[in-house]
Amino acid sequence: MPLTAQFDALGGPENINLVDLPVKQPGPGEVQVRMRAAGLNRAELLYVAGNYLVEPPIPAAPLGAEGAGEILAVGNGVSNFMVGDRVCILPMMDWAKYGTLAEVVNVPAEALETIPEGVSFEDAAAFWMAFATAYGMILDKGGMPKEADGRVALITGASSSVGTAAFQILTEIGATSIATTRTQMKAPALQDAGADHVVVTDVEDLAERVGTITAGKGVDLVCDSVIGDMIAPAAEALVPEGTMVLMGFQSGEIPGLPFYPILTKGIAIKGFHLVWHLLDNADRRKAAVDFLMPLWATGKLKPVIDRIFPLDEVSDAYAYMASNRHLGKIVVRIR
Amino acid sequence: MPLTAQFDALGGPENINLVDLPVKQPGPGEVQVRMRAAGLNRAELLYVAGNYLVEPPIPAAPLGAEGAGEILAVGNGVSNFMVGDRVCILPMMDWAKYGTLAEVVNVPAEALETIPEGVSFEDAAAFWMAFATAYGMILDKGGMPKEADGRVALITGASSSVGTAAFQILTEIGATSIATTRTQMKAPALQDAGADHVVVTDVEDLAERVGTITAGKGVDLVCDSVIGDMIAPAAEALVPEGTMVLMGFQSGEIPGLPFYPILTKGIAIKGFHLVWHLLDNADRRKAAVDFLMPLWATGKLKPVIDRIFPLDEVSDAYAYMASNRHLGKIVVRIR
Repeated sequence: MPLTAQFDALGGPENINLVDLPVKQPGPGEVQVRMRAAGLNRAELLYVAGNYLVEPPIPAAPLGAEGAGEILAVGNGVSNFMVGDRVCILPMMDWAKYGTLAEVVNVPAEALETIPEGVSFEDAAAFWMAFATAYGMILDKGGMPKEADGRVALITGASSSVGTAAFQILTEIGATSIATTRTQMKAPALQDAGADHVVVTDVEDLAERVGTITAGKGVDLVCDSVIGDMIAPAAEALVPEGTMVLMGFQSGEIPGLPFYPILTKGIAIKGFHLVWHLLDNADRRKAAVDFLMPLWATGKLKPVIDRIFPLDEVSDAYAYMASNRHLGKIVVRIR
Repeated sequence: MPLTAQFDALGGPENINLVDLPVKQPGPGEVQVRMRAAGLNRAELLYVAGNYLVEPPIPAAPLGAEGAGEILAVGNGVSNFMVGDRVCILPMMDWAKYGTLAEVVNVPAEALETIPEGVSFEDAAAFWMAFATAYGMILDKGGMPKEADGRVALITGASSSVGTAAFQILTEIGATSIATTRTQMKAPALQDAGADHVVVTDVEDLAERVGTITAGKGVDLVCDSVIGDMIAPAAEALVPEGTMVLMGFQSGEIPGLPFYPILTKGIAIKGFHLVWHLLDNADRRKAAVDFLMPLWATGKLKPVIDRIFPLDEVSDAYAYMASNRHLGKIVVRIR
């Protein structure tokens, strides 16, 4: 029986383990995939701990929101994919029903896109959450034009996979990226990952650096997926009527929102959710895929992968993510 | 010498008095106006108290942000207005330099629009702050289309002149208005002023009423010019990805912004300032004027005037506004 990553009690990554589980034939609208790689996401740590929006069934299996593999079988009503297709699974499935960290899974065909020629399974598993989210925050909700010459975006907590994806997308549309990171530790890696400017907020004044970089104008867009104490200074860094896009759910304390720049500068604060606002909307998903796919296929966009773990170290992979030492995506390879 | 409303110490309406002050010839770009009426605005109470964004010179004269009258003289460089023109003064002037509560004033020509045929000076003095702000919150910042059939807007603290203007504009574009008011007292007058639905928040549940009115969908837009404890329930009443436009400055405590609907529903919260975002921007001002003027000239838009005071009762007029018993505009008539 195929190995499947699961957890049978709420808690930390140590609760995640591998079990042999049978896989049924794919149901109507489903596809069966021989998984080759899966990408890890921070929200899964909240899910395992019982702190996410979706309550896990116990035992919860398989874990994992995105991945890539080859189609083994197709269910009734699936006409756009065939056995043998190399596909990526987009992070838009019901976590309580579907997952990706297993040797074989059934998934809804609507969650699939074809992997471009020459792209590895690991890259395919690391691409969508990062790049579709960055696209959504910048071009969909953020309203940046596709020809954004001279515009400037501030990316807070930029060492996430969304941050590094954002640098690449901003470069492609001709915009300038400013990344914030708390300590000096990740600053060189952020520059290597494509950030035009890096501000180390523990030792540098954000307003001053933004003022210098933008000749006093401010940034057009803030993308924040941290929801923490950078929101207020980032809002102050916006141009009049600039936009701040917020993404993510954190347990714990919710920070005060920056009221003063809303009223004095007329900024807009918008929330973004990858599935509800982009992937579940056929037109907006198509716009995202049409934008991202050609750039991905030609190597202009490429996920930054921090480290690849084998499936039998899946618990260690999540523990490594929890330790917050990575920059870019953590991927699990499935042989 | 012309009578001019002024105050020579920070405080309440009792500090406002009339003095005889000389008026110079209009400077370059200025126009001299024989004032006939001026509209009062709540922010002037903050200004008189020293709690507004603009610090008053002491003595501060003339008071007043908007009004209407006839042109007595034009300064150098003014080509689009002539002596004798009936004009309204838009609320976009520097309060520390210009005012409207006086028998004769000099004002910048760029603040003027011609009064449509058949519109009284009192209506002309009461129109712009209310209708340009309502336009800005609904169509400019709020993004409602000009054909908004089936859309629903929630107007909080709806008994202001902006609120009653909003009802009329929403009716014109085919949208439905829901007004909130705290107590039963003003509810009948709000209905008379054109609100399609009135929710008395002290005794009715906003979510329940909105649910009934919108068949469970929610409102597309919230216009809030109170910045108080209605923000959170109003945000919860929005459709997914709906917009809340905030306007106004209050001294005192700033409420917490509704973080949860931003992240879970992807709503947008935007600040609006009539001068900075609309009247100071030539294209956006033109769009507003082009929309409002024909509807005003044909009587489809008409300011709700609560009460008209003579100039020598200007202090009483502000005291009446402070007492919060009015619905619509308080106007001062200048003989």
